[in-house]
Parts: sequence; structure tokens; C-alpha cells
Amino acid sequence: MPEKVLIYSRFPKALMLRIGERFELLDAGGKPPNEVFAADQLSDIRAMITAGGTPLGGDMMDMMPKLGAIVCYGTGYDGVDLAAARKRKITVGHSPGANASSVADIAVTLMLAATRRLLVADNYVRSGDWAATKPSPMMRPQPGMPGRRIGVYGMGEIGRKIASRVAAFESEVGYFSRSQHDVPYRYFPSLDALAEWCSVLMIAVRAGADTHHAVDANILKKLGEDGYVVNIARGSVIDQAALIAALESKTIAGAGLDVYEKEPHPPDALTAFPNVVLSPHIGGHTLESHTAMQDCVMANLGAYFAGSPLPYAVKGG
Amino acid sequence: MPEKVLIYSRFPKALMLRIGERFELLDAGGKPPNEVFAADQLSDIRAMITAGGTPLGGDMMDMMPKLGAIVCYGTGYDGVDLAAARKRKITVGHSPGANASSVADIAVTLMLAATRRLLVADNYVRSGDWAATKPSPMMRPQPGMPGRRIGVYGMGEIGRKIASRVAAFESEVGYFSRSQHDVPYRYFPSLDALAEWCSVLMIAVRAGADTHHAVDANILKKLGEDGYVVNIARGSVIDQAALIAALESKTIAGAGLDVYEKEPHPPDALTAFPNVVLSPHIGGHTLESHTAMQDCVMANLGAYFAGSPLPYAVKGG
Repeated sequence: MPEKVLIYSRFPKALMLRIGERFELLDAGGKPPNEVFAADQLSDIRAMITAGGTPLGGDMMDMMPKLGAIVCYGTGYDGVDLAAARKRKITVGHSPGANASSVADIAVTLMLAATRRLLVADNYVRSGDWAATKPSPMMRPQPGMPGRRIGVYGMGEIGRKIASRVAAFESEVGYFSRSQHDVPYRYFPSLDALAEWCSVLMIAVRAGADTHHAVDANILKKLGEDGYVVNIARGSVIDQAALIAALESKTIAGAGLDVYEKEPHPPDALTAFPNVVLSPHIGGHTLESHTAMQDCVMANLGAYFAGSPLPYAVKGG
Repeated sequence: MPEKVLIYSRFPKALMLRIGERFELLDAGGKPPNEVFAADQLSDIRAMITAGGTPLGGDMMDMMPKLGAIVCYGTGYDGVDLAAARKRKITVGHSPGANASSVADIAVTLMLAATRRLLVADNYVRSGDWAATKPSPMMRPQPGMPGRRIGVYGMGEIGRKIASRVAAFESEVGYFSRSQHDVPYRYFPSLDALAEWCSVLMIAVRAGADTHHAVDANILKKLGEDGYVVNIARGSVIDQAALIAALESKTIAGAGLDVYEKEPHPPDALTAFPNVVLSPHIGGHTLESHTAMQDCVMANLGAYFAGSPLPYAVKGG
């Protein structure tokens, strides 16, 4: 008999096919498990798979009295109440680095598309405005990448991969992180100092209480009117209302966002701006990235059911 | 009295402001000069500024009997009839490398946006389809950059800058050029061999009779169904009808285009595809790039009127 594993978040079926070959999957499809399954179905579940950003509190864990492992699909685990898990001695795993390249790539994609006004440009061609040589203030030349100061907030695996990509565009790269790393980029001791220096801020920091709304009205103002903010981390790191206000008042020039405070519900005020580029949390959404994340999930589940420590355990989880 | 300079192509006025401070500009605005100016106005014109891709034959040159210098704004000069110029001992100058970084950046922007389906993604968010969790086959995970084989066609300054940027994305980079260069990328002896090897073809070759329609149905087929073509060089390098056919038959996965066979008139068949990313020939369209191109134009004109050789002369021009 294959071991039972609860699927907590809403995942496309195709992503779970391979895992389903080895485990019996009970798909709660984003709903509280007790709304989808009877108590006796949940009673012998020992492991679950979740998207790290999905809120997962002790009350949900308690619906499964035998739950011993929470396995996050992806690198994030900010939705998981680690204290509640610890209390019940539930081990928490994730997929560190598995999606780092893919996420860094979308960060650079959003940065380039926003700063070069790619969506406006594409629309200018498709609408026939170009053929009609219709003037467009949005199509005025913009500052390019060479010499541009790009600030990376967070210097984990994703931050490092963003920095090495961005440096190839002849840009200057600086960063802020809790501690200085052995990387060839200029270190700033605070997010304030980084924002003062750079004109494009790339958010690649882990979400948590200490980074909640770290990018606020003050930080955005420091980026300046040629400034852009790109967020591929978590929506919670930006004060989204302050971002909307900064875009409205032209305090900054634009933004590139893969993540939002409430997903999948970016506010209408945000989706109305022509100078922002929006993607639906697809940072880790490449074939190779999914394969690598599935590898981590399989390895974590396999180890757990074999009674071994998780190979990709969350530190302090 | 400032020297007179004819503006042959259609340029935004803002681009000519600085040049207009030093020279008296006669703006033909894209029309044959004799339709805009009387013969006696043209009779003493000794220099002209043109966009390199604009057709400029001997008949146009002959409208200005004293013409001695054709200065191209940008790196290209494929529109200029060099033989006709040579016959009249008209020297031809351009702006080599001035826009190379800017053009390489738009090449990578188009590549990333096309391969990660950025326009589809942005529309998925803005339309509310994401909020409604509406399934979208276009949003399925795509191959990412790490390990992807990127072929660069042409290894001039723009080709080299594309290659160094693309390599930072953990991709494999190969190239074809008339001759092998001292660069750390795999050399292919033919465009056929390069297309067979790579899945993304970046066109960065100089336009001319030898590269006309070099990327044809055969080359596109070799890229394969996961293949993309990105063109930031000149529209003439791709057989545009073959490209449309390849996109229609899903012989390739998509394309990113900054240039077209007839500008500003990309065909409707092309602008209807959701899996292509289109920009209106904005490769060199950054503030720094325009400044650098203007520097070259000023230096070329200054030298010419001082009786010196052009500092940025076209070889064989």
C-alpha cells in the first residue's frame, strides 16, 4: 500500500503526476482538509505537500493527528506556522535552490521588460500606432542598463543568481542582506542605504515578520522618479498600497511584479498601470524547475516515510 | 554661418536638438529631398544624416551635387548604396558600437519575454483570468534558460554583447560568423549547423546581399518545436513569410522581433500571434545609446567639415 499524502494547496494535476505514482494523494485543492475529507480519512495521514506561501496554521495541522511532515513545494515556507509545527514535532521540508535559476530569470525578465517598456512597445506595434507613426510619450527613450545601479535585497541563492545575471548587462550591482557575503558586489548596511544608491530594487529576500512591508513609501521614494521595483519574493515584502500610491504620483517610474499581497488577486489599481509588468507567480514555473522541486519533494517524503531526517529540511522547522 | 546638413530619414526632433545647435538642419522628414526643398536650397548641401536602414540610392545623392558625406545615425548602413557613393567619392560614416549594449539588451529582453511567455502572463493577470483560476494552455511550464542552447548569428560587437549576457543565464552559447573569433563560445561553421544545435537563434548579423533571407524555412525548421528566433538586426535577414508559416504550423514555439521587412509595417499575420513579442525597432532606443550615436554623428560631421577623414567611417564606404 502506498503511503497517503495530503495535497493542501491548489496545484495543477500535471505537477503531481510523478509524485502520485509513488504515493496515494488526497487532494484538498486549496480547501481546509476537513471540508473535503472525512475525519477517518484524515486520521492516518502522516505527510502533506503545500505551497510554502499558503497559510497553514496549527488548526489545519490538528485535523491530521498523525501528521509528522509538512513538505513545501518550492523554496518558501513563510505560510507555515513553524512554531505550531515544532510544538507537535512535525518536521518541515522545502526545495531550497531548486527554482533559484528560474526565479532569477523571471526577475531579470520583469526588470528588462519594465525598464524598456516592452508591453507598451508590443502594444504600440500591434495596435497599428507604429504604422501610423502616432507619437507616444510612453515610447520616449529610457535609461538603459549599462552603468545603471541595481540593488538586490537579499543575497540567498536567488539573490546571487539575480546579481550575476544583472552584472552581465554592464550594470553596477549592490546589495543589502542581514550579513555581508563573499560576493563581488557592493554591500550596503541597510535597505535605506541601498535604496538611496540604486534606481532598480530587486526584491529577493525571504518573507517573514522581519521583512513584512520592508519596502514601504520611504524606500520607494528613495528609488526616485527613474526608479523601478521588481518583486519575485513574496507580496508581503512590499507595502502594496504604498506601491500603488508611488506609481500614481510618479514617485517611481514603474514596477515588475510576480507576487502580490493576496494571490491570485492583485488589486485593480495595480493592473491598471501601463508602466508595470505583471506575472502570475510564475517565477519557479519552468520545466526544469518543476522537475527539481519534485525531486526535493520525493526525496523529503521518501526519507520521512523511511524514518530518516529530511534531506531538505527547513532550518528551525 | 553654420554648415547646412540635410536630415534624410524621419527622426524625432528631440534626437536632432543637440546636432541642430551646431549645424543648420534641413529636415526632409523621410521624403525625397527635392520634394521638400528647392534645387537651389539643395545645391550647397555637403553632408546629410540618415538612418542606416533607409534606402538611399544614387538618385537621391544626385539631388545634392556638392554632397560629400553621408552620416548614418546608428551602426547599420545597409540602406546606403555604397557603390553609388564611392563613384561620387562621397564618404560614408556611422556609429559603430554606440548602440551595441542597448541593442543587445533588447535582444535578451525579447528572448526572455518570448520564452517565458511574458505578454501572455501579463494579460492573464490583467484580464482577471488568474483571479478566476481559469486554465490556460499558454501558461504551461516552458523550458527555462539553464542548459538551453542559444545560437548567436553574427559575432560583431552586438553579437558579443548578446553572448556574454546570455551566458550569465547558465545557458550554452554557440555562434556562427563568417570567421571564427577569439571568444569563449562554441563556433559552428554554418548557420545550418548552428540552427541544428540551438533552440533559440539570436540574429545579430549585418544586413546585406549575403545575409538576405538567410533565416529561411529550412533554418526555422531546424530550431524545432521548442525553438525561438529573435531578430534585432534587420528584417531582411529573415524570410518573413517563412517565419509566419513556421509560427502558423507550430514548427517553432515563438519569436521576438524588433525589426521587420517593411518598417513601420509588420504584417497583420505577424501581429496576430500571441506567442511572438514585438517591439518597434527600439533596439538602440535608450538615453545613453542616443547620446553615444549623437557623439559619433557630431564627430563625423565635425571632421568632414574640417577636411579630415571621418573618425567613424564605414569600411569600404
